[in-house]
Amino acid sequence: MLALFYDGQSVRVEPRHPDPRPLPDEAVIRPLRMGLCATDMEICRGYMNFKGVLGHEFVGVVESVGDKQHRKWVGQRVVGSINCVCSKCDMCLRGLREHCRQRTVLGIARRDGCFAQLFTLPVVNLVPVPDSIDDDQAVFAEPLAAAYQILRQLRIEGRPYITVLGDGRLGLLCAQVMSQLNATVRLVGKHPEKLALCEKWGVKHRLLSEVGLRADQDIVVDCTGSATGMQTAMSMVRPRGTIVLKTTVAPSPTMPYLDLSPLVVHEIQVIGSRCGPIPEAINALASGRIDVVSLISRRFKLADGVEAMNRAQKDRALIKVLLDP
Amino acid sequence: MLALFYDGQSVRVEPRHPDPRPLPDEAVIRPLRMGLCATDMEICRGYMNFKGVLGHEFVGVVESVGDKQHRKWVGQRVVGSINCVCSKCDMCLRGLREHCRQRTVLGIARRDGCFAQLFTLPVVNLVPVPDSIDDDQAVFAEPLAAAYQILRQLRIEGRPYITVLGDGRLGLLCAQVMSQLNATVRLVGKHPEKLALCEKWGVKHRLLSEVGLRADQDIVVDCTGSATGMQTAMSMVRPRGTIVLKTTVAPSPTMPYLDLSPLVVHEIQVIGSRCGPIPEAINALASGRIDVVSLISRRFKLADGVEAMNRAQKDRALIKVLLDP
Repeated sequence: MLALFYDGQSVRVEPRHPDPRPLPDEAVIRPLRMGLCATDMEICRGYMNFKGVLGHEFVGVVESVGDKQHRKWVGQRVVGSINCVCSKCDMCLRGLREHCRQRTVLGIARRDGCFAQLFTLPVVNLVPVPDSIDDDQAVFAEPLAAAYQILRQLRIEGRPYITVLGDGRLGLLCAQVMSQLNATVRLVGKHPEKLALCEKWGVKHRLLSEVGLRADQDIVVDCTGSATGMQTAMSMVRPRGTIVLKTTVAPSPTMPYLDLSPLVVHEIQVIGSRCGPIPEAINALASGRIDVVSLISRRFKLADGVEAMNRAQKDRALIKVLLDP
Repeated sequence: MLALFYDGQSVRVEPRHPDPRPLPDEAVIRPLRMGLCATDMEICRGYMNFKGVLGHEFVGVVESVGDKQHRKWVGQRVVGSINCVCSKCDMCLRGLREHCRQRTVLGIARRDGCFAQLFTLPVVNLVPVPDSIDDDQAVFAEPLAAAYQILRQLRIEGRPYITVLGDGRLGLLCAQVMSQLNATVRLVGKHPEKLALCEKWGVKHRLLSEVGLRADQDIVVDCTGSATGMQTAMSMVRPRGTIVLKTTVAPSPTMPYLDLSPLVVHEIQVIGSRCGPIPEAINALASGRIDVVSLISRRFKLADGVEAMNRAQKDRALIKVLLDP
């Protein structure tokens, strides 16, 4: 089968990658649409030391299952949680399954990803997609869930001032999700054409260059995907405020030292935030509350996956790049 | 008067520093004993861009007051909060006085410190010292309060595993304070002779080199005072665990880039923690719950303050260095 493969050095399309073979508790999924994520680019810079088929954002159809007890899934359109867990370790047993010590992660850690004609996931990870949600929407389930994760981690008191920092894919999703709170939310970024999307959602937005770093925000969500985002966040958040950290970047020797003393001096709280609840994302998409389709900038064929990665990397005007099988 | 002065380049004893003149709401204090803190050393490497008389740990006697309405304080033995606030800014008005936007900080920010024969503090900052607490104990009020601050910021659930990282002055205080919780507490450090102090307190302790970085601690308190402490803390804390950050270091171009992606991947919470409640520290000292006297390693005269700073900096075996007037 066709697959977009990273060998630890470079990305290539493999025309004859072996078809995946499901374990008894797994389903084989045929992607209908796939999404490129900043994490895919970071992996190609060494993040997570991953080698294998890339990709973790998808909507697909269950092609087959490893054991016939799961056959009701066959033909079902699905999205799914990307963390595949052991159910036995201390984290699984205390209810923190997404933090399983033995986990594999689709296209990120020790498990081939979804940028292929077929891939596998455990059946327990699957979430059915209702007919009211089309493929262009459903492919956003994973990143949208990551945005909803923030609501699970924050305690909102009063009517806080919230800045979402970074006008990329995740920032634009987080800004919409945070706007559902009893809060004054603004998106701060560097790209006027991306910020303009906020107009139709009724979300406040500002250019970073026009914003004072006044340490007056109750909550700052760092979605910059940049090593310097934390520095900016520390300048924006008020004393005793909260920074939600979404950014992961592959470490590089050229990156500057990060002075964390503002965290101590201003007693700032930082909350790392990763994957979120896929069913909640599907509910939000079904309700029409979240506009994801406006984020789609370009589409490529999976066979042109290398070009897609290069374009997504270089062209700062692009928001979401999708892949078709 | 005599004062230990940092001019932005080097530290010197000034024999004829001008006596301080109190504002109407201030007291003039004559220190009876003073304590050296890692922050004093960091300031001499450029932290906070401070210039002036050093020092913020003291016990002293009120010599005079700026207005006679405060005369009941004269002759009183006191310790005090080091943050001098405006009572008018948004932080003061919302109850976060220690984070006052206009604050000056004794010997740290825009206010001469206590390493002098006389210094001033606002009367509202003062806390009387009961006779049952001697000078050697009372001089620890400020750093001990910083340890108690952690208890105000943490929510303890179940019986957590807590590691206090760093066997310096603050680590040894934090280990004692954290041991009052319903928790399994250990101190992890690099100096067997410092860790040995834990024996008499009944606090578990381990050498860092003997501890596995197993991501199994619910809470890690970074008291290392080292730029690499955060890295170690991130390796020790469990997914969804908490790091309490006490370390502040002057940024330096030789420091390595700090990869914060573990915070995101493991959804770790970081809580910056600074100054704490002085009255609580005084209560703890009065109760005899906390042993501070064992931490005293050396005493110098204020006139030998430069040597005291050098020794405290270079001799890793020293724990607490005190200054006598």
